[in-house]
Amino acid sequence: MTPPEGVRETFFVSDSTGITAETLGSALLANFPGVTFRRHTIPFVDTPEGARRVVADIQRSSREGADPIVFTTVKSATIVRELSLSGAVVIDLLGGHLRELEAALGSTASEQLGQYHGVGDIERYFARMRAVEYAIEHDDGQSMRALDIADVIIVAPSRCGKTPTTMYLALQYGLLVANYPLTDDDFPSDGLPSTVARFAAKCFGLTTTPLRLSQVRHERRPSSTYSSLAQCTLELRRAEDLYRRNRVPFLNSSTKSVEEMSAVIMQSMRLRA
Amino acid sequence: MTPPEGVRETFFVSDSTGITAETLGSALLANFPGVTFRRHTIPFVDTPEGARRVVADIQRSSREGADPIVFTTVKSATIVRELSLSGAVVIDLLGGHLRELEAALGSTASEQLGQYHGVGDIERYFARMRAVEYAIEHDDGQSMRALDIADVIIVAPSRCGKTPTTMYLALQYGLLVANYPLTDDDFPSDGLPSTVARFAAKCFGLTTTPLRLSQVRHERRPSSTYSSLAQCTLELRRAEDLYRRNRVPFLNSSTKSVEEMSAVIMQSMRLRA
Repeated sequence: MTPPEGVRETFFVSDSTGITAETLGSALLANFPGVTFRRHTIPFVDTPEGARRVVADIQRSSREGADPIVFTTVKSATIVRELSLSGAVVIDLLGGHLRELEAALGSTASEQLGQYHGVGDIERYFARMRAVEYAIEHDDGQSMRALDIADVIIVAPSRCGKTPTTMYLALQYGLLVANYPLTDDDFPSDGLPSTVARFAAKCFGLTTTPLRLSQVRHERRPSSTYSSLAQCTLELRRAEDLYRRNRVPFLNSSTKSVEEMSAVIMQSMRLRA
Repeated sequence: MTPPEGVRETFFVSDSTGITAETLGSALLANFPGVTFRRHTIPFVDTPEGARRVVADIQRSSREGADPIVFTTVKSATIVRELSLSGAVVIDLLGGHLRELEAALGSTASEQLGQYHGVGDIERYFARMRAVEYAIEHDDGQSMRALDIADVIIVAPSRCGKTPTTMYLALQYGLLVANYPLTDDDFPSDGLPSTVARFAAKCFGLTTTPLRLSQVRHERRPSSTYSSLAQCTLELRRAEDLYRRNRVPFLNSSTKSVEEMSAVIMQSMRLRA
């Protein structure tokens, strides 16, 4: 494969999730707006054999183009050396600094599984923030771009508590959570809305009481059809029918805190942080 | 001032908030568990004069001890050069990598206000995660450690919506939000609980309707005094009296979404993201 003119193959190689390499590397690349980068993330590279497989991938990508760029946060000097044999430009985001520190302190960095102490916190930060960004992008059916990687898709009529639950699951557990509003348009059919139908196994429904829904909606649009008790009763009954027909597990959010709902959803969908 | 034996003075110097320098620098320092570091963060160093003031600070700290360590994310090569004149070990977390990239790409990093493109996102990530950690530490009166730096302290009886609102303000806006539960013990007095009384100007109260509170509490402890309508009515009346007597602004959470409450609190307390 010949890469398109002007595209630089760029690899983020990590002995952990790769999120730190990706985030720092991308921040550095943003300083070169004139160049197009094709990005590949390769996580959990923690053996010389693993490194050799990465080198083969890098060499395959570069056969015709300019030298690829490799950002790495791998701690093992052996693995970094292997990566350098690829002929790519290897940018060692942390290792060089660790050696500067060793020299300054006159002591050797402690060894633990070949991974950096402390960097786990940064990986967790980035993982959670990425989950929150995913949740914001996929809130209220705004985007369907990456439903295939969602851990769970929360479906419910408007104002049943989709957004706070979504945000909580993303923030606390780093889960990728999308949510999708059920509207009147979705009810003539017996199936789930077509956008989420092929991800039915990932769907979780919310319901509430008609009175509570009417109160909450009334705050947003007083004295509208939207907030009328009749409309709320109808929408909730139809939503619950839809969940039952499609074997979508669901819960009533009217007297549950966001924390409680999140716990039920995780247990029901067998999700782990 | 002679630093205590074995303590290394460590400076995080940034042309922005310093959060990236602190977070990456601290992750690297965690690899040297045998050394004690005294940390100083110096943000917004973006002129040579500013850098010279930092150099004076660094030199003052080092008069008697081992060479200080400086982690920097400042983009300007001139400022980095100034910092090196301090005699400290200067670890340039991003600049060296940017020069490696310039060489690899055969092009110069774009200049914009002397700051890195893209790094703003990382600063925002870390700022929000720090706010969330603050919120978790200061949730439900668990810790009073750093109330002096809180942007707002949310006070309310149990189950009025303190936690979700706190988390939302932290996550979405990077605000430092503590919250404190009002209990029966707080009501004999006319004033705010002593822990938060000296921060009265930062307090914001929540209330709800007795029926809603009783329902929510009933989920947690069915048929208890805690969840009885009488107890809920009493607590809410006392809380509202307390707010009024102490001029603590407050709102009723019963029909408001977390997003709406957050917006009201920010406006009322004149907070900005």
